[in-house]
Amino acid sequence: MPYVNIKVTREGVTPEQKATLIHGVTDLLQRVLGKNPNTTFVVIDEVDLQDWGIGGLPVEQYRQGLTSQTS
Amino acid sequence: MPYVNIKVTREGVTPEQKATLIHGVTDLLQRVLGKNPNTTFVVIDEVDLQDWGIGGLPVEQYRQGLTSQTS
Amino acid sequence: MPYVNIKVTREGVTPEQKATLIHGVTDLLQRVLGKNPNTTFVVIDEVDLQDWGIGGLPVEQYRQGLTSQTS
Amino acid sequence: MPYVNIKVTREGVTPEQKATLIHGVTDLLQRVLGKNPNTTFVVIDEVDLQDWGIGGLPVEQYRQGLTSQTS
Amino acid sequence: MPYVNIKVTREGVTPEQKATLIHGVTDLLQRVLGKNPNTTFVVIDEVDLQDWGIGGLPVEQYRQGLTSQTS
Amino acid sequence: MPYVNIKVTREGVTPEQKATLIHGVTDLLQRVLGKNPNTTFVVIDEVDLQDWGIGGLPVEQYRQGLTSQTS
Repeated sequence: MPYVNIKVTREGVTPEQKATLIHGVTDLLQRVLGKNPNTTFVVIDEVDLQDWGIGGLPVEQYRQGLTSQTS
Repeated sequence: MPYVNIKVTREGVTPEQKATLIHGVTDLLQRVLGKNPNTTFVVIDEVDLQDWGIGGLPVEQYRQGLTSQTS
Repeated sequence: MPYVNIKVTREGVTPEQKATLIHGVTDLLQRVLGKNPNTTFVVIDEVDLQDWGIGGLPVEQYRQGLTSQTS
Repeated sequence: MPYVNIKVTREGVTPEQKATLIHGVTDLLQRVLGKNPNTTFVVIDEVDLQDWGIGGLPVEQYRQGLTSQTS
Repeated sequence: MPYVNIKVTREGVTPEQKATLIHGVTDLLQRVLGKNPNTTFVVIDEVDLQDWGIGGLPVEQYRQGLTSQTS
Repeated sequence: MPYVNIKVTREGVTPEQKATLIHGVTDLLQRVLGKNPNTTFVVIDEVDLQDWGIGGLPVEQYRQGLTSQTS
């Protein structure tokens, strides 16, 4: 009876993509550990860009920094 | 000082029902473990149906499958 | 299909107390929201005292401070 | 590669305050544990007042109780 | 920069199986959402059987109930 | 009443370092958002190296790959 939580930035993930993630993770747990899909929960959280930090910065500023470094 | 997180699908849970959940869980922890309600946190997350998977499917499709199986 | 996570300090919670918490939370969700117990997960985490902070201190030091304040 | 999740009540936290939290936590982990900021994630969740319980009550009712006790 | 948390019961999951889960989830997020593996975190939690509840019971008692029902 | 969860790899974090993290995060939330330390919880999770994945690999293998790439 696994529980899986997937957190991604909120950037237009479609319901179809979410369904593919749910199916893929559930299938993986069944293949690798023999877990029953009927007691496998997958919960997806989309996180606003201003709420996700990396490198000490909100993600949008972090990406701008990467871009300006490489240019 | 317990911390409790309750995740349910977003399907019209009312503020009164949330208050009942908060009270019930806090009371349970006080009765069973003697925990002080003033340092018991309860956080409720409502999760959109397309973000909750079970049986390898988003929950709405999963329920439709159950219905068609039994009919 | 609720998912509930209960975090408490690791201070000798017995398997019987855990079973009572699991039953109590599941029953609460069934009574208040009509949730099916067979798709209600409850996960309990016991957290070492040195890993839980309140008032800016690990919990043991915090409690010692409360005791000395009131005495 | 730390992962930090900060949950606060939704009460008008600004993007600037969030950026300060992200920077502060990342800096703390670098100073105390030598963690690389580029693999330090910080995720902030704002929680509606009706979804956060303390003292067995939703937070707004809890605060009203504190106010009336002290007056 | 996704963050994925996988919780399973503690029942002898091997390091190789964990590595397969980590690779599989990371690969899935790259294929479905184009996420960079170098900023994809996967954290696996193994949960003791007495700490996982389903159907209002700790998981071992729940399984015993299923077995006796079907026999 | 913030709740903060810090996850780091289990690599010899001392109780003193944990206390510094707890104090630092609590102080940050008080300075930036005016949060009361007495209702600020910090929970630290140490995660075994085989349970943390990045780049599609358990963290130890990931680090070995970085080392061999740069040499």
